[in-house]
Amino acid sequence: MRNLALALAALALASTASAQQQPATSVAVNPQAPPAAAPISAEQQRTVDRLRAAALESDLAWNIVEDLVTEVGPRLAGSEAEARARVWAEAMLRENRFTNIRTEAFTIPYWDAVREEASVVAPTQQHMVIAALGGSPSTPAGGLEAEIVRFPDMAALEAAPASAVQGRIVFIDERMQRTQDGSGYGAAVAKRGRCAPVAQAKGALACLVRSVGTDPHRFAHQGGSSRQSQGASLPAAAVSPADADLLARLAARGPTRVRLNIEADIRENAPSGNVIAEIRGRERPQEVVLLAAHLDSWDMGQGAIDDGAGVAIVTAAARLIRDLPHRPRRTIRILLAGAEENGVHGGAAYARAHADDTHIVAAESDFGAGRIYRFRTRFADSAAPYGRAIHRQLAPLGIILGDNSASGGADVGDLRTAGVPVVDLGQDGLDYFDYHHTADDTLDKIDPEALRQNVAAWAVFAYLAADSDWSFRASE
Amino acid sequence: MRNLALALAALALASTASAQQQPATSVAVNPQAPPAAAPISAEQQRTVDRLRAAALESDLAWNIVEDLVTEVGPRLAGSEAEARARVWAEAMLRENRFTNIRTEAFTIPYWDAVREEASVVAPTQQHMVIAALGGSPSTPAGGLEAEIVRFPDMAALEAAPASAVQGRIVFIDERMQRTQDGSGYGAAVAKRGRCAPVAQAKGALACLVRSVGTDPHRFAHQGGSSRQSQGASLPAAAVSPADADLLARLAARGPTRVRLNIEADIRENAPSGNVIAEIRGRERPQEVVLLAAHLDSWDMGQGAIDDGAGVAIVTAAARLIRDLPHRPRRTIRILLAGAEENGVHGGAAYARAHADDTHIVAAESDFGAGRIYRFRTRFADSAAPYGRAIHRQLAPLGIILGDNSASGGADVGDLRTAGVPVVDLGQDGLDYFDYHHTADDTLDKIDPEALRQNVAAWAVFAYLAADSDWSFRASE
Repeated sequence: MRNLALALAALALASTASAQQQPATSVAVNPQAPPAAAPISAEQQRTVDRLRAAALESDLAWNIVEDLVTEVGPRLAGSEAEARARVWAEAMLRENRFTNIRTEAFTIPYWDAVREEASVVAPTQQHMVIAALGGSPSTPAGGLEAEIVRFPDMAALEAAPASAVQGRIVFIDERMQRTQDGSGYGAAVAKRGRCAPVAQAKGALACLVRSVGTDPHRFAHQGGSSRQSQGASLPAAAVSPADADLLARLAARGPTRVRLNIEADIRENAPSGNVIAEIRGRERPQEVVLLAAHLDSWDMGQGAIDDGAGVAIVTAAARLIRDLPHRPRRTIRILLAGAEENGVHGGAAYARAHADDTHIVAAESDFGAGRIYRFRTRFADSAAPYGRAIHRQLAPLGIILGDNSASGGADVGDLRTAGVPVVDLGQDGLDYFDYHHTADDTLDKIDPEALRQNVAAWAVFAYLAADSDWSFRASE
Repeated sequence: MRNLALALAALALASTASAQQQPATSVAVNPQAPPAAAPISAEQQRTVDRLRAAALESDLAWNIVEDLVTEVGPRLAGSEAEARARVWAEAMLRENRFTNIRTEAFTIPYWDAVREEASVVAPTQQHMVIAALGGSPSTPAGGLEAEIVRFPDMAALEAAPASAVQGRIVFIDERMQRTQDGSGYGAAVAKRGRCAPVAQAKGALACLVRSVGTDPHRFAHQGGSSRQSQGASLPAAAVSPADADLLARLAARGPTRVRLNIEADIRENAPSGNVIAEIRGRERPQEVVLLAAHLDSWDMGQGAIDDGAGVAIVTAAARLIRDLPHRPRRTIRILLAGAEENGVHGGAAYARAHADDTHIVAAESDFGAGRIYRFRTRFADSAAPYGRAIHRQLAPLGIILGDNSASGGADVGDLRTAGVPVVDLGQDGLDYFDYHHTADDTLDKIDPEALRQNVAAWAVFAYLAADSDWSFRASE
């Protein structure tokens, strides 16, 4: 929200420069390029070039995320801090001169850990760094104490007889793989959700899991466990890598007792909400291109990369489009969802409230602030030329074209299920899980250059989707 | 303490191999090498080659530090955990078959932070990650709250009028430089000790300093402040880098209020002690080559690199010498000092108790577990050829020869002052202050390969100093 004059000046400058350097038709009508990309107009090409260049010089996104983490900071779903974030977001969106700004309220089950402590009590006494898993119940007052039983992975726990588990604290020591696309997360996160129900069925007292993360630092990674939906009621926590190592070394030596003390604040019907803003389409205002990110965060860190960065990226991209001489034909809608982290409540509430809206395409930025390296779609086959046309304008940003199996992101998941086309502007996530859901998710982990590249890609995608009459669905 | 058979086998093997490859006299009598290095015997050369090779294949040091951090963990000076570390150390030294193993007890002023909390309370509410500085008094019960006043460095605080400071919490935002030899520490650490007395003289209520460290992670770096000796009684704490950034951003925007709550457990005459063991010299047992490290640690981390690594390095080096067919002529003494972190009490107690011993040379390993890159001495000028002779045997380990201004290390500081020659086996400390005095000082930060190189260098140095009749002092 600062440096507005600078950004506008850069926009004007970039417009002139790129129009001179790059003839508008060179990309759109290349007869040798199989398979075909849908053509765009010369005016659209000039606009895309302006947007891309302006974004790469813009501090808009940086200023937004800097402001969010400075003035609000962590904002747990349903908390007073999340409410402050909504107030902040509405003001920020007004300052950026969007229209139709509002908060759509809903309520959620609230969960917060007001105490989360664990220590080895025998054969040595050592404090551990842990994070209670979202939804974990409290331990009995004062904590519980038991011998641990270590399993290298979930499969080993599943295979274990109840007699090996009963009355003990289960410790799942599975590690996560570092991958560019974050695909290691799915495999590693299974233990976070499944440890408690499986361990409970075998008579365990609690669950500890090696943090779902890729860093070597003394942070525990927070995260929701899905056990509540499976009827489990076992206290569960993630331990830092060094403490998981310690438990593994101690367990290899002999019986190891651990004390776990979790105190959870659990309430029903806590307030949350989605903050929404628009650039109203000049020709087809009922048709919506949805750009999403989530406003809430876990509360150990600042929520900078998860998902302050996403909030900043989609807002800055829309702002650059808003500053164009002509609004796009379709409406661009920003969804800053509430309560994503503890159950994607905002995305679900949005899908319910807007089931009858005409969503042309939807996408969420929620994978940190790394450079975008891949564009994926989930379009009807007949719409593939539109995907290629968009990708052609993303390629100068170093972005490759992926397949047609995009997920779109958590908060547009219900829309996707309902048939709304989605895309992924896939970020390089090699280091994302170093910081994800830890105290170390702070502003300094965002690279301003990579952030600008994200804004450029989102602006190009959103503009082309909104200024066209393309349908990404199967024709009827 | 494991893999003993392996280490001995490697030693035997290495002995044969190196004797074949490297004629014993080639290094010792090179007439072209100015300036001259003192000669060593062929037998000594063979032994040095054996030691070096055996150390580079040995897991002795790794097993020692792994055992210490697993079975004891953090061991704050004067605490029950430090007492457990002494018990552990005596048993470990017995297992390694040293002689004259004993604990020399002394008492210290005890300090522990049982509560250390800070948060921004206006214009936003955000929790911060801090560490009370060693010696800090408690805040008034429930904490104190005041506006912060930021200074970029200590000089700015010194220059400020009292009116700018009175009734406020001083925040020194100085950063530390990353250097190989750790020289950035001295400059950066000044603020840790001097903030409180200077701020108190100007009427401040408390001191916050940007952590003395080089990492970008959400850890506060512990450390003693020297303010007690300067008569100050101001609560003082270090804040993590991300929280220092937050304070700086908020201070740039306007008045910022912080709540600080420190509860310190301060006691007199807490028990500590030095654990000592020896390899008794076969010809001149009264002459002592002293290898030091410290047994205590700060208590947020595991005390792995500070100074579990040092304990492991000097002990493993001595153990390799102990396993030689012949003991060296002089006595090698291991000093595992207590209570270094909160005032070098162990080093002082040792110097008092052993003022009349004949110390030939002394050195401490207390700069982590990075590779040794430089050998420095503090010898009489006449002893320079001995320093060069030692260095010549260290050079195959990639170690350069530095100047004659070695410090020796904190726990041999009083000996140095009393005229005992010292050396520095200087470790690469580029990343040392990433972990130093944080929760992140854990076993996984030690590179086993670098640890072996350390052991090799210490074994070579200690053997040559102990098996010679060299004097490193000015001749009388």
